[in-house]
Amino acid sequence: MNTQLRLARRPSGEATVDDFSVTQETLPTPGEGEVLVRSHYISIDPSSRTHWNDGESYRAMVAIGGIVDVGVAGEVIESRHPGFSAGDMVVGGVGVQEYGAVPGDSLTKCDLSIAPLTSWLGGLGITGLTAYFGLLDVGDPKPGETVVVTAASGAVGMVAGQIARIKGARAVGLAGSDEKCRFVTEELGFDAAVNYKSDELYRDLKEATPKRIDVIFDNVGGPLLDTLFRRLGMHARIVVCGATSQYNNDRIYGPTNYLALATMRARMEGFIIFDYADRYEAARTEMAGWLKDGSLKLRENIVDGTVEDYPNVLHRLYQGENTGKMLMRLPAAGA
Amino acid sequence: MNTQLRLARRPSGEATVDDFSVTQETLPTPGEGEVLVRSHYISIDPSSRTHWNDGESYRAMVAIGGIVDVGVAGEVIESRHPGFSAGDMVVGGVGVQEYGAVPGDSLTKCDLSIAPLTSWLGGLGITGLTAYFGLLDVGDPKPGETVVVTAASGAVGMVAGQIARIKGARAVGLAGSDEKCRFVTEELGFDAAVNYKSDELYRDLKEATPKRIDVIFDNVGGPLLDTLFRRLGMHARIVVCGATSQYNNDRIYGPTNYLALATMRARMEGFIIFDYADRYEAARTEMAGWLKDGSLKLRENIVDGTVEDYPNVLHRLYQGENTGKMLMRLPAAGA
Repeated sequence: MNTQLRLARRPSGEATVDDFSVTQETLPTPGEGEVLVRSHYISIDPSSRTHWNDGESYRAMVAIGGIVDVGVAGEVIESRHPGFSAGDMVVGGVGVQEYGAVPGDSLTKCDLSIAPLTSWLGGLGITGLTAYFGLLDVGDPKPGETVVVTAASGAVGMVAGQIARIKGARAVGLAGSDEKCRFVTEELGFDAAVNYKSDELYRDLKEATPKRIDVIFDNVGGPLLDTLFRRLGMHARIVVCGATSQYNNDRIYGPTNYLALATMRARMEGFIIFDYADRYEAARTEMAGWLKDGSLKLRENIVDGTVEDYPNVLHRLYQGENTGKMLMRLPAAGA
Repeated sequence: MNTQLRLARRPSGEATVDDFSVTQETLPTPGEGEVLVRSHYISIDPSSRTHWNDGESYRAMVAIGGIVDVGVAGEVIESRHPGFSAGDMVVGGVGVQEYGAVPGDSLTKCDLSIAPLTSWLGGLGITGLTAYFGLLDVGDPKPGETVVVTAASGAVGMVAGQIARIKGARAVGLAGSDEKCRFVTEELGFDAAVNYKSDELYRDLKEATPKRIDVIFDNVGGPLLDTLFRRLGMHARIVVCGATSQYNNDRIYGPTNYLALATMRARMEGFIIFDYADRYEAARTEMAGWLKDGSLKLRENIVDGTVEDYPNVLHRLYQGENTGKMLMRLPAAGA
């Protein structure tokens, strides 16, 4: 049998257990070109919440009754696609379920000699690629420039800041506790970190960005972004990667200091990672090199659970308990 | 004697007469390199309000007790600058006063064979140049694309929309009354206009932008911008030119739909017109050609008044009474 988590209704505010239903079905049979995957790790991403709303987005919303669509790392059980064989380890959009039959073309085979399976869902997965292309293609930091990353101890932020440093920029991380700030500077090597819960946030930010800010890589949004706008440098670039502080709100908080875009001749720009699919492999190769030479460090926060636990694990992410890429390990991973 | 309008205190909300003081001084004497100008027309600009706040901006704020700093068209009375002679007609930042001694290098001599003096403060002045560079350099519309201009019947908007059309784009204007919408389409030749006070604003906007929006040239900000963001096309550009709806507010309304920048791979970008100073002349030459061949039409709304009347005339602009470039004509212009 296959246990699955489905969206039961559109959440209002933060999703709760009642917004989902757990179903059981017989194991799916892969069709032509499909692969049957057994899920080992479920990706826990704040942005998943945005797929459960009504309305338009860059991707189809999860339908009521649909499987909760997240990234999964797992093992190929049966393949009807020439690129995969039973026993291969893969990542792809299997969703919150124990097994999924998905198109082989949507899967990535994981070379575990480069990095462990969990990293293929984190730093070498969509999370890390989002940091890579968002920072380098949209933010385009130059050596010596100052890059500020919000949610710097989170899955995307930790990679974005390290890449900024690798490319010769000054990386300043914003995080929600002194412990996370220490992680960002001492373990990841950011040049500075600021606790955004500080009573003297602007003062601390100013101290950490003596030459103002050239690139904001923003994962958080909300009033924090207003504060960062006050510190923009000339011709600054703001990369709109996400807005975790706003995903559970019915009404998004807009950046009230956006007129600084004019004052500072700055631009704010968004992107969707799927547009870069034909460059994923090249990016992964470059990132694998950084992993090997130690200039890029990854951290995963692995929580054990079952399909039914997903809503509660996501809640912990939103409580700010997480550092690094958060994953839920299913019992299958230990088998 | 020289009658002058000075900032008496920092306004809270919309500026009132009590925020200003009227002073009288003997005529200033131009120093070396300076020119004594007699003001004929005072530029009435919504953005002037932003220079009366405390704090940082792209330019120095008007100090308490300082002359209210706006653009003026007038006549050279005495020149100690080799580029000007008595009798020349000029535009420059003389401020709200009957006479000003200002650096000759800050003035532009007006060739009245190209356009009347009032146009040199409007379409050929900073207002028109703002439309020109903001639209072409920041918005960069391609032939066939859809350009939406807010405050389309205003000084900057009317020029921006016409230039969009001249460059082969579809120009859609947003304005605050049916009469202004008619002006925009029938007199200026925009392809369509939408009354932003419509009860069915989004429906009307959708109808006017069947291929969605490629460029927003925004002068207004506020909730109207939220509605426009819902209609963004892929890779859209939002030109942050101004936010007239917000200048009188203590707290700026931020665009709550800004995450559409990611969904639509769009960018929002600001600019400051003074950065383009070395291209003003080339732009004026091109615009003069459009004026001559009739593809660019200018409209000025000229209100008679004296230095003391400035706050009340500005109030009328904020009341939405204006169509075209608003100017206050001083008695000197009729002399």
